[in-house]
Amino acid sequence: MHLDSRHPLASGLTHDSRLVRAYRGDRPDVTPVWFMRQAGRSLPEYRALRVGTAMLDACLNPGMASEITLQPVRRHKVDAAVFFSDIVVPLRLVGVDVEIVAGKGPVMGEAIRSNDDLDRLLALDPAVLDERLTAVTEAVAQTVAGLRRIPGIDGATPLVGFAGAPFTLAAYLVEGGPSKDHLRARALMHSDPLAWSRLMAWTADVTGRFLRAQVLAGASAAQLFDSWAGDLSLTDYSEHVAPASARALEYVKDLGYERGGESHSVPIVHFGVGTGELLAAMHGVGADTVGVDYRIPLDEAERRLGGGVPLQGNIDPAQLAAPWEVLERHVLDVLARGASAPSHVLNLGHGVPPDTDPEVLTRIVELVHAR
Amino acid sequence: MHLDSRHPLASGLTHDSRLVRAYRGDRPDVTPVWFMRQAGRSLPEYRALRVGTAMLDACLNPGMASEITLQPVRRHKVDAAVFFSDIVVPLRLVGVDVEIVAGKGPVMGEAIRSNDDLDRLLALDPAVLDERLTAVTEAVAQTVAGLRRIPGIDGATPLVGFAGAPFTLAAYLVEGGPSKDHLRARALMHSDPLAWSRLMAWTADVTGRFLRAQVLAGASAAQLFDSWAGDLSLTDYSEHVAPASARALEYVKDLGYERGGESHSVPIVHFGVGTGELLAAMHGVGADTVGVDYRIPLDEAERRLGGGVPLQGNIDPAQLAAPWEVLERHVLDVLARGASAPSHVLNLGHGVPPDTDPEVLTRIVELVHAR
Repeated sequence: MHLDSRHPLASGLTHDSRLVRAYRGDRPDVTPVWFMRQAGRSLPEYRALRVGTAMLDACLNPGMASEITLQPVRRHKVDAAVFFSDIVVPLRLVGVDVEIVAGKGPVMGEAIRSNDDLDRLLALDPAVLDERLTAVTEAVAQTVAGLRRIPGIDGATPLVGFAGAPFTLAAYLVEGGPSKDHLRARALMHSDPLAWSRLMAWTADVTGRFLRAQVLAGASAAQLFDSWAGDLSLTDYSEHVAPASARALEYVKDLGYERGGESHSVPIVHFGVGTGELLAAMHGVGADTVGVDYRIPLDEAERRLGGGVPLQGNIDPAQLAAPWEVLERHVLDVLARGASAPSHVLNLGHGVPPDTDPEVLTRIVELVHAR
Repeated sequence: MHLDSRHPLASGLTHDSRLVRAYRGDRPDVTPVWFMRQAGRSLPEYRALRVGTAMLDACLNPGMASEITLQPVRRHKVDAAVFFSDIVVPLRLVGVDVEIVAGKGPVMGEAIRSNDDLDRLLALDPAVLDERLTAVTEAVAQTVAGLRRIPGIDGATPLVGFAGAPFTLAAYLVEGGPSKDHLRARALMHSDPLAWSRLMAWTADVTGRFLRAQVLAGASAAQLFDSWAGDLSLTDYSEHVAPASARALEYVKDLGYERGGESHSVPIVHFGVGTGELLAAMHGVGADTVGVDYRIPLDEAERRLGGGVPLQGNIDPAQLAAPWEVLERHVLDVLARGASAPSHVLNLGHGVPPDTDPEVLTRIVELVHAR
């Protein structure tokens, strides 16, 4: 399906931005840089805005979600906005009883413990999301408009859409909340593979529709985030998880546009924590760019991917608190290793820690842009 | 230093047990099997015994710790007892304010947040442990005696001693308790490497003395457990962690004995969760046998270790809840892959989950012993 001609990619606004070029495998003059979780908890202007508003309410308030998404672009001059949302937003909208508890994470009113629980969940039709995502699409539209009004950036800064991968959502649903080892979820995939695959297909449809809606509304790239995939062996990932991740990405893969007489698809990024063993399999589900965790050097990731895959990452968030000389050396090392890939989007190898000094992030952007 | 001639290894009692032979790199007739965390929470007889006793009090009660250690040997007929203790026991004994909170883990009265905090900690002299570990050495002695009285086993079942690795202890001390990503600990190693190495040397001395005491009192092998090493890149592990792990193992490495005219050292096993990237480095700190997490197949671990290293592992705990046919296939697959190593001790690729049906563990032991 063709994107609307006014979409930032289709209109040409973001098509040649540093970020989209790098996601296409080109090497722009300057390495683009953004930070996972740049929108949110590390910024004082975010904390001020959020006072008195619950996390999911903030995600579903278009003005607030859009303003929060814009804050780090204004402050750090990063090369991408990343949509402020949460991976459980589509679960809430489809009818799942879920809340985000501060300092803990998503907590379900009811964990999936039986086939009856599962049947009740699967009775919620993912197709209803197409009509319930208006707060999200409105926030995306406001963000895209807002990006053009930020002084000091060129107006072509792309917005990255964001959704959780099916395994991570399924893990929360089965566990009922955060878990150290996701043992219940991983047990279910072995003890009842049929129930597991039904659950995974459902979460794929839910999160796929969420991601598609963001792209249709104006996001210029789509990142699928598998927080917990690193808990899986390659065999389990390939057999019990990858098919659902591919299914989720199908919702975005058919979205394309024409520029300069050529057809282009919307760039897809796939990232998971601790997934050094899974990089090639995660690329294989349909990602264009692979996000790399801080544990694996980018040149090693390039080797594991067999070459030719754009990489995103992987500053260790633990280095953000180090003296500038130490951090600078680390950033330059990441850039040097990223040079082994066809293209590189500098990012963290995990989200921005809440107590990060925002000025450190700004300084990293300045360092990269000045090279 | 030579072990006492009455030590189970030196007297010959356990020297030719399946476990010790496999740890030496021999292949006994039957693959030895034991389970990490076999002593404890999954057994009803354990839960009955523990009623009204706090975790660390149970660890420091020789009769109770010894009885808990023996329970799974009686029940499952495993090829090793593993000492019931906790990695923070030596911290408590050296004077650190630490408690184990049920469902959470070790919680420190005070986290290390400043150089003053660190100085206060380092003022506690690890050498005092040699006199404060009597409850531990008494429990070990009672266990060794108790193993000879269990009907249906041959009396030569060895006891495996157990201690936490310096990084895991340091992570708890810096974080103040369990943490998802150990960001404060990992930040300290980059922001103040000198403070970090002082802390690591201290934890190495504390936990090394704890492990040594268990071996001197009668343990026939020593397992160093690095719960959180999997959070580290290979570079950080090698630079900021491995030296301290090697230092901890120095406390055991000089303990030896003579059998059949040959000198032998006490077998050392090193295991960490999610450490597929670190296997060779973890072997390099002085381990004889490397424990492998469930994420990496044993034949791949063998390849990464360059061959020649005895392996321990790696049944996925998530498979313990699967139907027997599924679990049996998985166990046989683990055994087949373990055949690529010079020798193999069957174990889990992480601890026994609390809600495991103990009969499943017994059935695994029967399956392995019947082959």
